[in-house]
Amino acid sequence: MAEQQIRITFQPSGRSVFVLSGTKIIEAAGLAGININTPCGGAGTCGKCQVKIAAGLQMPCDGDKKIFNDEKLQDGWRLACQTSIKNETVVFVPETSHLVSQQKIVVESETGGSAEVLPSVHKVYVQMPAPTMDDNKADLLRLEAAIGSFKTDLKQLRNLPKLLHKYDYKGTAVLADHHLIDFEEGDTTKQCYGVAFDIGTTTIVGSLLNLCDGSELAITAQMNPQVSFGDDVLSRIEHSASCSDCLDELSGIVKSTVAEMIDNLCRQADISHDNIYEVTFAGNTTMEHLLCGIDPTPLGKVPFVPAYARGLLLDAKDFGIPVNHNGKVYVFPVIGGFVGGDTVAGILATNLSDQQGAVLMIDIGTNGEIVLAKDGQLWAASTAAGPAFEGARITYGMRATTGAIEKVVFDGDIQYSVIGNVNAVGICGSGLIDLAAEMLKSKMITSTGQLLGANQLPENLPQAIAQRIYEGDNNQVEFLISQANQGRKDLRVVLTQRDIRELQLAVGAIRAGVKIMLKKAGVETKDINRVLIAGGFGSFIRRTNAQTIGLLPAEIDHEKINYVGNASLAGAKWALLSSNARRRAEELARKTKHVELSLDNNFQMEFADAMIFPS
Amino acid sequence: MAEQQIRITFQPSGRSVFVLSGTKIIEAAGLAGININTPCGGAGTCGKCQVKIAAGLQMPCDGDKKIFNDEKLQDGWRLACQTSIKNETVVFVPETSHLVSQQKIVVESETGGSAEVLPSVHKVYVQMPAPTMDDNKADLLRLEAAIGSFKTDLKQLRNLPKLLHKYDYKGTAVLADHHLIDFEEGDTTKQCYGVAFDIGTTTIVGSLLNLCDGSELAITAQMNPQVSFGDDVLSRIEHSASCSDCLDELSGIVKSTVAEMIDNLCRQADISHDNIYEVTFAGNTTMEHLLCGIDPTPLGKVPFVPAYARGLLLDAKDFGIPVNHNGKVYVFPVIGGFVGGDTVAGILATNLSDQQGAVLMIDIGTNGEIVLAKDGQLWAASTAAGPAFEGARITYGMRATTGAIEKVVFDGDIQYSVIGNVNAVGICGSGLIDLAAEMLKSKMITSTGQLLGANQLPENLPQAIAQRIYEGDNNQVEFLISQANQGRKDLRVVLTQRDIRELQLAVGAIRAGVKIMLKKAGVETKDINRVLIAGGFGSFIRRTNAQTIGLLPAEIDHEKINYVGNASLAGAKWALLSSNARRRAEELARKTKHVELSLDNNFQMEFADAMIFPS
Repeated sequence: MAEQQIRITFQPSGRSVFVLSGTKIIEAAGLAGININTPCGGAGTCGKCQVKIAAGLQMPCDGDKKIFNDEKLQDGWRLACQTSIKNETVVFVPETSHLVSQQKIVVESETGGSAEVLPSVHKVYVQMPAPTMDDNKADLLRLEAAIGSFKTDLKQLRNLPKLLHKYDYKGTAVLADHHLIDFEEGDTTKQCYGVAFDIGTTTIVGSLLNLCDGSELAITAQMNPQVSFGDDVLSRIEHSASCSDCLDELSGIVKSTVAEMIDNLCRQADISHDNIYEVTFAGNTTMEHLLCGIDPTPLGKVPFVPAYARGLLLDAKDFGIPVNHNGKVYVFPVIGGFVGGDTVAGILATNLSDQQGAVLMIDIGTNGEIVLAKDGQLWAASTAAGPAFEGARITYGMRATTGAIEKVVFDGDIQYSVIGNVNAVGICGSGLIDLAAEMLKSKMITSTGQLLGANQLPENLPQAIAQRIYEGDNNQVEFLISQANQGRKDLRVVLTQRDIRELQLAVGAIRAGVKIMLKKAGVETKDINRVLIAGGFGSFIRRTNAQTIGLLPAEIDHEKINYVGNASLAGAKWALLSSNARRRAEELARKTKHVELSLDNNFQMEFADAMIFPS
Repeated sequence: MAEQQIRITFQPSGRSVFVLSGTKIIEAAGLAGININTPCGGAGTCGKCQVKIAAGLQMPCDGDKKIFNDEKLQDGWRLACQTSIKNETVVFVPETSHLVSQQKIVVESETGGSAEVLPSVHKVYVQMPAPTMDDNKADLLRLEAAIGSFKTDLKQLRNLPKLLHKYDYKGTAVLADHHLIDFEEGDTTKQCYGVAFDIGTTTIVGSLLNLCDGSELAITAQMNPQVSFGDDVLSRIEHSASCSDCLDELSGIVKSTVAEMIDNLCRQADISHDNIYEVTFAGNTTMEHLLCGIDPTPLGKVPFVPAYARGLLLDAKDFGIPVNHNGKVYVFPVIGGFVGGDTVAGILATNLSDQQGAVLMIDIGTNGEIVLAKDGQLWAASTAAGPAFEGARITYGMRATTGAIEKVVFDGDIQYSVIGNVNAVGICGSGLIDLAAEMLKSKMITSTGQLLGANQLPENLPQAIAQRIYEGDNNQVEFLISQANQGRKDLRVVLTQRDIRELQLAVGAIRAGVKIMLKKAGVETKDINRVLIAGGFGSFIRRTNAQTIGLLPAEIDHEKINYVGNASLAGAKWALLSSNARRRAEELARKTKHVELSLDNNFQMEFADAMIFPS
């Protein structure tokens, strides 16, 4: 296997990864865990992904010339989305091109306004005059005179006078939504942090933000431990009802994982748990119910009624997570039983409601959420896409993490890149899409999804590829993706007929959903201005490949298809950084029309059609 | 002892008491636990204390003739404040003359507005359409559509969907200040109760109110169990700091007593604890701090700083009192370290801020609180009057309860009435004032407070009185008030020289306080329009007697002196019944100027002067 892996190193972090020749810098950055701005989705038009090539500089492309003047080009400035890596490269990524700034820039570019860091948590350092006989007003009134009116609870009330006295009436008041949550010694205004979580059915991602300047200090991802109780929401709902403690058990394990992840984030950034004052959670409706310990069984049966719809502002201590003892939790509003806070967060982060014309957003996770925006109107639906794209139910499926094949090209033989540049141990969503597309193009898979046996293969198929087809257990045809020796162990990654069926189900659900959504809204496929692809694949989906397998409509010019990353997490971060964004999320959740695909008479028919790969 | 006790029976309650001939009906009603309206303080001018004499009718007096026409007079209608009892009497007290209505009528008469029952707690019975696939909005949104927006907490959020489903989307929502605190099966809108507490240093009084119509269902009083740790606030403050658990101990025992009293009130009125949704507490600053478990030690030393000043809205579960599990607690705002929520409640209940000219309110309890109002301006001070008027520190002192001598007249011999018409076991505040006044008038006590010995008594003193003076233990002169045989026990009630000294201290503190307050505000005694006497004496103070001993300024026409009962409890009830009253209390607390008597250079001098009884 002729893998030509090239090293690319990112500065100032110093992280490096190995990638295939021809990989775009922006994709490589994603593999290295460095998220670069790409509001235009990598079309080369917004000029926000500027990087400076320190070693391995190549000639600028047309896109670079539109953005940079000659001096800058000579200095090595390039667009990360336009520049492919051909040889060993060192890239400097300026602060302004990092993902956290992306959110600001998305807002700037799309609404004309500027993004803001205006969290509901804020800190004020105060120096108050100590009480005297001439000025012996109550401690709380004294503090109120310094910081404005606030609410408090009995516990704080018992503590505060002691603290004020101990600190000689000087210190830092911490406020969240006009509640006094702490009073700290000295000036701690710079130590103010929050964590945003995307609680996925399969994967949980957490991001630690500095609430003073909005910068991202650390990020972490873990498998949702509830997967051991089933890999889709319905099996979790069933489990929650199967014993009297089962709901608490499901709720408890996800909270424990959140707690571990917060620990991990604090260690990464070397900050104290006590300085985390707020945590935001965006998840689908079932995940949010389970997180809060709210019985989800009504979500599992007609008429699919959620307990709440507006966002929840709760006390962190009720969640048992290691943050400030008076910290707050914000749980995203939901749209309906199967369209949840993660979708609201995505709509928020992509500013979908302010886009001109028809824009489609598809969030590809265990549930495929589809949102259609048309001149300010919003429709949203959810399809049970299944966890194939997150690696579950695929024989060698895995998340986009070290050891995962994340990109595949057929070039005489199979070429692939593996995250972390180690031996491949499995394949993640983007790799699976690439592989299926290449096999379809090579006619190794029929349009009905049959994986052809060795004697049925097209004659012009390169020998190296054809040799990878063999008969496995139970006379099932299989395709050998990779094989490596590691010590005495033989590491193999294989694609089976069953895996292709799972992929067909996942693709079909999304494709049928999109079709019905468009019909509901009276929008023709050709009238779609843009398609935004969201999801935590860990890397870009190759747009043409996604169209080849039918995941995205073939009629749409691939320039109009943009990858927007984990939009749910991005929205959770916005809501952490800005009270206005939070209010906006509430508005968006209420104005979005919930389309119940399962209620649509045509859905089963469309789904059956959509299982057929496009020819 | 020639006590001529006459029975008076009140209808419709059927309660009866025995009183001395000449007792006013309104005083007798107080003894029977029936509180009749008296906004004019018994001057016979407001006409609010109308009762109908069913047996024992006498000729109407001039006051009656001003209020009633001939027909009414013939039917037996009289003013309770004007009519003295001469023979066995049966009196019907109409609903409109009861104390709860008094509050309404006070408001009507003094501000022109009408009193309102608009508690922060209210209940709404709702019948919602059950969810269908066409209408599957979230449970909380469904309820919101029915009752308007509300806040909730995680616990409610977990419970509510189950309750809605169980009760088929019909039931009673309980709201307090826009928080949903419960959802009950069926229509329970009529079962809505609250308890108002006056937390005194010596005595705690609780009143159970129906929050639908404002009626009082039961009342109960108990000794503050903290008295075992000292009978004034300073000794409680000292005790709270004397060990690490002492604050919790002091806080715990008062909360236990409050819990017992709530039990008692529920039993009396035969209602469920779960239907009590709110509790209001008015107490002096130290008592409120202790109740809430807030360290009171800063109140015991210069510069006397309270922890809070604004009223506190807290969760009842933090107080461990037996009310609805999501019930609320409102703790009155305080004015300063020694002028607390009880004074604010008193100002609220007497509408002091809206009175024309100068009005003085004196609340005689363990602390004597003095409030001066002048055309909307308010000054307040506190004096350490000591608990003499509540029975403590007096050899045979006791609260105004069964067995207490509550009225004394010299008429050849001593005449007295005992609460509950049993043998006397002690003497309460009003009895003590009467007795001291009679002894001063008879010159048995000198103006410096010396109780004369048998051989120093004035010659014209009736023999029966003179014989009561004897030399007790330690050669101290004593006065025998009463003596009775009860089984083998000899029940004696005695007044000692020491008791008179305690009385002098109590009287002197209040008298000196009043003098300094008047000076601060630039008000002459003669310019005082009205004096309102508040306190839980259990009966009226005889105004002339209070003037005789110097407790009230002698210059003031006794018509201008009105007894307003337990104004602190009345204010706590108002705040329970009306959110507007609560807002008013907050305003009053902030606008009242706190006068620190201990800071006044003249206080010690005035105090020494005021210890001398007026001649």
